[in-house]
Parts: sequence; structure tokens; C-alpha cells
Amino acid sequence: MMLVFKTIPSLHKKIKSLKLKNKTIGFVPTMGALHEGHLSLIKKARQQNDIVILSIFVNPTQFAPHEDFEKYPRTLKEDKLLAEMCGVDLLFLPDTKIMYGSSPLTEVIVDPALTRTLCGKSRPTHFTGVATVVAKLLNIVTPDKMYLGQKDAQQAVVIKKMANDLNFDVKIITCPILREKDGLAMSSRNAYLNAKQRRESSLLYQSLKKARQKIKTGEKKSKKIIDFIRENILNHTHGKIDYIACVDADTLKEVKVLRGKVMVALAVKFGATRLIDNIIVNT
Amino acid sequence: MMLVFKTIPSLHKKIKSLKLKNKTIGFVPTMGALHEGHLSLIKKARQQNDIVILSIFVNPTQFAPHEDFEKYPRTLKEDKLLAEMCGVDLLFLPDTKIMYGSSPLTEVIVDPALTRTLCGKSRPTHFTGVATVVAKLLNIVTPDKMYLGQKDAQQAVVIKKMANDLNFDVKIITCPILREKDGLAMSSRNAYLNAKQRRESSLLYQSLKKARQKIKTGEKKSKKIIDFIRENILNHTHGKIDYIACVDADTLKEVKVLRGKVMVALAVKFGATRLIDNIIVNT
Repeated sequence: MMLVFKTIPSLHKKIKSLKLKNKTIGFVPTMGALHEGHLSLIKKARQQNDIVILSIFVNPTQFAPHEDFEKYPRTLKEDKLLAEMCGVDLLFLPDTKIMYGSSPLTEVIVDPALTRTLCGKSRPTHFTGVATVVAKLLNIVTPDKMYLGQKDAQQAVVIKKMANDLNFDVKIITCPILREKDGLAMSSRNAYLNAKQRRESSLLYQSLKKARQKIKTGEKKSKKIIDFIRENILNHTHGKIDYIACVDADTLKEVKVLRGKVMVALAVKFGATRLIDNIIVNT
Repeated sequence: MMLVFKTIPSLHKKIKSLKLKNKTIGFVPTMGALHEGHLSLIKKARQQNDIVILSIFVNPTQFAPHEDFEKYPRTLKEDKLLAEMCGVDLLFLPDTKIMYGSSPLTEVIVDPALTRTLCGKSRPTHFTGVATVVAKLLNIVTPDKMYLGQKDAQQAVVIKKMANDLNFDVKIITCPILREKDGLAMSSRNAYLNAKQRRESSLLYQSLKKARQKIKTGEKKSKKIIDFIRENILNHTHGKIDYIACVDADTLKEVKVLRGKVMVALAVKFGATRLIDNIIVNT
């Protein structure tokens, strides 16, 4: 039976009693609108921990004023059913007042080297919102392990660095991207796409796959790879490219020559909907 | 028998075993050079907790390049004896590499409203260093209660706000200022004073005491109080005034009319040595 907590002290009390019994805690932080990608994180947490805690909180501070905070999909009833089916023990469901109370004045800021590149170029305040809310959630939930999706690759890198720098005693596990049959990376924002956009969007991953093939068969210049993906997308879709980049998978530094563990990442807008995807290639 | 820990995993392991036994942990973070003020924090922690943890770490990130990091007094041998005498159970003694490891990129930043006023005007990066290292220490030590001195009043306000904003599950207890016989607030930096500076420095608290008297007998204008203290110090010492301020004790906002819980705070330099002191007046 899944227990639902809307306040921090009630959740704390429960967690303390579990810790006294030496139970291990796996934590999956989400903004709800759960899809198979989220469920894969929950299932992994279920395998590796005594207790699984899921949080659902659409965090306003990681949206810029012009972004989609208001219309971000909220499907709480379905989310609860899915969470319970996948074996979540405790669901943390705070509202904004519980999370941000009386005029907060503290931010957790990760260096621009990680937070102003890739998605951070067009979303300059996004990762401060993410790092701050995750620091808060880690203090509230105090998990042994936390599960993140590789779809939000930059987010995972930023959170890992933040948690390590601030000595959070948590192991962070990044789980593979789950994809629709045509290859589109699963995302709550896919719900925004109309039928035509949805068809075209599959080309993002198709392009990344072809790029991987090019790299595996010898292409070492990141410019060649980026140009190849750009042409593919521009020739076959109405998407507007935000960025296509080849970066070091750990430091997120742009690389000119592909070497080691490289991430090829992109963000493309279909109408108002911004989609991201990435692949890791060991060159 | 006090145990000494120089690495984080070894301390973590010990703390986890204590938590499993439901022991409460009181934590006193310091930069060493322990004096009676520190010891009063340790004694309070000793009264209120099963286990007392003391940290000694001269944190480089809270010193500006021109400040006294290099010459800050280091008296480890004496500190260990005093700590053990006062009943410290675990001494955490990390070096800079243990605390900041491989090129940290994360800072905990508290709003300028709290961090760029008072001491923050002349030490603009100081409280980011403080907030960040305390966030790290809280994650390393995971105390139930943490003890801070009222001498560093702004630091206590900043840390309380940070800990609350980031949901650290810790109760923070601010302990009264301890003073030398002539009233000088105890501080590791008092050791820098020469004999003449030391004699003159007692005037800081004498001025604050007289100011309190003026407030208690009806003075409501903060400008009058500030001018009174300034004249006292300038007429009777060679000290250079950094600031004298009347602020709300919780928000640190400057007040023109004294009302409610007011802090009268000052910083004065004697030669290269910057001394701070404050009183709280309930008006």
C-alpha cells in the first residue's frame, strides 16, 4: 500500500523510523506526467532498495517566465496508479508553499561551465532551479540512491556534480533513455506535439543513430557530425534547431575532435515544444 | 576517549552506526584556535546530545585573497586537549583537499539582502564561502543540532536561513557571546592585537553597553545611537570604523526607528585586525 505525504515533517518522521530499521532508500524525483521512462527508474529503484520514494513536484523555479510551467502536463490520478503498480512505497507530493515557504533567499549555483552550455544557453536560469530543488529534495528524502534519466543528460551531470561538491551522501544512478517505437525519446512534453510534429520528431533519434554510425566508421570531426545532423533535420522536418553539439560526456566541454566518451546532444523546437535527445558514443 | 577523523568516509561510517543506535548528534563547526566562546558551544552541545562532534577546518573560501587566511591562528595541539576536556566525542579534522577535492563547481549563495550588508559590505565573497562550507559540513556530519556563536551574528542569520531554505533537518542554536573581563568579545583574532590595541578594544563593548542604556531610556532614532557609538570609539581609540549599524535582528534590514528586536552591530579595525561585536536590544 503506497503512502502519500504532502508535508515534510510527516515524511521525515516516516523516513527516520525506516532508517532506524536500517532500510535502504531509493529515490526517484519527478515532475509527474509519468511515462515508461519514469517507470523504468522506479523499477530500477525497486530492485536495488528496501524502500522506494517517488516525488512529484512541478518545480516553478526551473521554468523561465515565458516557459511552459502553467501548461506542463499534470496527470496526478494516473501517476498515482502507475506509481503504486510499480511498487512505490512512499509518494511525496508537496505543493509550492510546502517546498518554498516563506520567501527563500538561498540558491545552489553550479558553475556556468556546466549550466550555461547546451540547454543552459537558451535556459540560463534553469539549472539553478534544478540544482536548488534537488538539494532540497535530497535533504528531505535522504536517500541512499537517487535515479535520474539519461534523457536529461545535462541535468544528470549538473546534479551529480552538485551532490558530490556539497557532500550529499547519495549514489546517483543514471538510467538509459526509453524510446517510442519510432525512436522518439519518451518525454512528458511529447504530449504537446500535434500529429505532424509527432511524425517528424522521430527524425531526431534517426539522425543521432546515423551520426553514431558515421563516428563508428571513422568520422572524427565534430563539425562534420553536427552539420550532418543539422542537414538531416532541416531537410526532413519543420523543426527549429536550438543546438546540436558534441561534448565530453562528463565535463560537457565542446570537443572539436571526437575522442573518448562523447555525447552528441541536441534540442529542437517543433512549434512551441522543445525536444531534447542525446547519444553517448565511445570513440 | 575522543576519536579523530581526517576523512569523510571514515566519519560517515561512524555516524551511521551511531544513528542506527538512535544517538542524537550535536555539532560545533569551528576554525580552531579554540577559546572560551567555542568551549561554551561544546558544553551546550554536551548537555543536549548523546554525541558531540567538533570540526576544525580553516576554510579558505571564506577568506578574500588579501585577508588573514595564512596567518589565522592554528593551535591544534591545544585545541585537541580542550576539546577532549570538554567532552567532544568525535573530532573532524579535514584538510582542504578532503573538503574541496577535485575542482568544485558548486556554491550555495544566500541573497545579498543578508550577505552584502554589515560585514558583507567589506567582505563581499565571505558569506558564500561560509554558506557553502556549512552546507557541506551539514551533509558530512548530519547533526540533530548545530551550535553557533552570537558573536558572528550575521553568520548565524545567514546559516539559519540557508539551512531552512535547503531543508536541512537540523536545529540551529545560537549561544551568547563570551567576553573577557573588560568586555571584549572573545575571538581567535584577539590574539593579533598588541597591548595598546587590546586595551583600546574594550571600548567597543563599553560603547555598545552605553548605547543599550540610551535605547532603554528612550532613544528611538538609530542615527543618534550610531553617532553616539562612533564618537565614543573615535574619541577614545585609534580604531578605524568599518561599520556601525542598527538592524532588525532577524532580517538584518537597517532600521531608522528602533522597534522590536534590534541588533546594534559594529566592525572596527585596530591596525590590520578587524574586530566585530553586537548586542541585541528588545525595544
